Amino acid sequence: MKKKKKVNAAILIIGNEILSGRTQDKNIAFLSNWLNVNCGISVLEVRIIPDVEKTIIKNIRLLSKQFDYVFTTGGIGPTHDDITAASIAKAFGLKYGYHREAFKILESYYGKEKFNDGRKKMAKMPTTAKLIYNPSSAAPGFMTKNVLSFPGVPSILNSMIENCKRYLVRGLMVHSRTLNLFTVESNISKQLGMIQKKYKKFVDIGSYPFFRLGKIGVSVVSRSTSKKKLQEVNKELLILIKSKKLKILKI
Amino acid sequence: MKKKKKVNAAILIIGNEILSGRTQDKNIAFLSNWLNVNCGISVLEVRIIPDVEKTIIKNIRLLSKQFDYVFTTGGIGPTHDDITAASIAKAFGLKYGYHREAFKILESYYGKEKFNDGRKKMAKMPTTAKLIYNPSSAAPGFMTKNVLSFPGVPSILNSMIENCKRYLVRGLMVHSRTLNLFTVESNISKQLGMIQKKYKKFVDIGSYPFFRLGKIGVSVVSRSTSKKKLQEVNKELLILIKSKKLKILKI
Repeated sequence: MKKKKKVNAAILIIGNEILSGRTQDKNIAFLSNWLNVNCGISVLEVRIIPDVEKTIIKNIRLLSKQFDYVFTTGGIGPTHDDITAASIAKAFGLKYGYHREAFKILESYYGKEKFNDGRKKMAKMPTTAKLIYNPSSAAPGFMTKNVLSFPGVPSILNSMIENCKRYLVRGLMVHSRTLNLFTVESNISKQLGMIQKKYKKFVDIGSYPFFRLGKIGVSVVSRSTSKKKLQEVNKELLILIKSKKLKILKI
Repeated sequence: MKKKKKVNAAILIIGNEILSGRTQDKNIAFLSNWLNVNCGISVLEVRIIPDVEKTIIKNIRLLSKQFDYVFTTGGIGPTHDDITAASIAKAFGLKYGYHREAFKILESYYGKEKFNDGRKKMAKMPTTAKLIYNPSSAAPGFMTKNVLSFPGVPSILNSMIENCKRYLVRGLMVHSRTLNLFTVESNISKQLGMIQKKYKKFVDIGSYPFFRLGKIGVSVVSRSTSKKKLQEVNKELLILIKSKKLKILKI
């Protein structure tokens, strides 16, 4: 069996509505979690940019070089502000036009009569792209080199995500363990820092305050590609928790 | 009266918990909306990056050059993974250490006895930074050159945001109007595109699908710093809506 390696990705959210604060993004958390759990792919950077051609082109070129995969959301619909497909074609110097299979899918979905110019636009993309089928509204996403493009509407994105799996190389999954404690960060920060230092190469330990039932708490989250090292860290954390007489909160 | 100009900003979200999908970000939409409405500052880019020193330094240097302001969230607490303050000091070649006023604030908040090393760490930052007072948990945010740093916990960030207003130059506010229609994008995409083309220099028109009560709809959002131009676009949209016999949905 070929040994799995770390595989990474960036997410590029394209859309003025997210940048302006009008719409609360829901795709970042979904994509990042799905990629890790299902494909062992770690998201290492996210960018949110406006619907501006030169900004899209610049970011596509840069991120596709820096990361194994780039996942874009938004800007592949039928209206004038949907410029993701054309911009990606430009970024890679590829022909932009009707994708033969996408055109057929949409024509048969709408029927020849209702297949107007707006709908036809959704078949336009880099002509050599691989399609990501869309079970909820037909208009496919697509993969251009290492860039995978999805629509921005979360329910549609969620419905089609499984269909990109076959294009992806699986990597090492990051496992995590969470301990929720009713305490304040500064009560355990010193010891946490020491444990983190000891396991620096293998485990990332994060500490995140929360508020619940009028009390302050801390979630200690350990993340690693090695289950064994995670287990070791967990043991050390349990010793710390015992020494401080803290209770672990079940959620 | 000095004529207002466009003022822009970038948001830099620092934190593995957002990148991994464990935590759903709530600060982007809040900050972007608050900055526009209260200060006339438009957010033009958002990045989410991990708690990695060299990544933070690189992004702080880059974004602080490209934008009028940079707003960071996360990484200014008491634990080992809170490295934002130290990284910003390094990015600008500034001294990192106890900030005299921040130290006093925290010492008086906790009392000398309970002012342990973890809590003291929250007074460490670029020593020449301007403070952003925190009414909910004392530990201040800070402004270093054009970079403003806030904690990641949304309720705390929200409570202190007003306290950074005095450091900001006000710009032109972007006004917006939204028309919600029960139709599909492809039914109006051609005409929308024509209106957008006509007002290209003054107004951004966005089109966003929604689902409600089992029906598909489109929100048409127009945005501009000019109320007059926005009014003109709205008139043209109302003519389009009438010609298509669409109903405007009140929300």
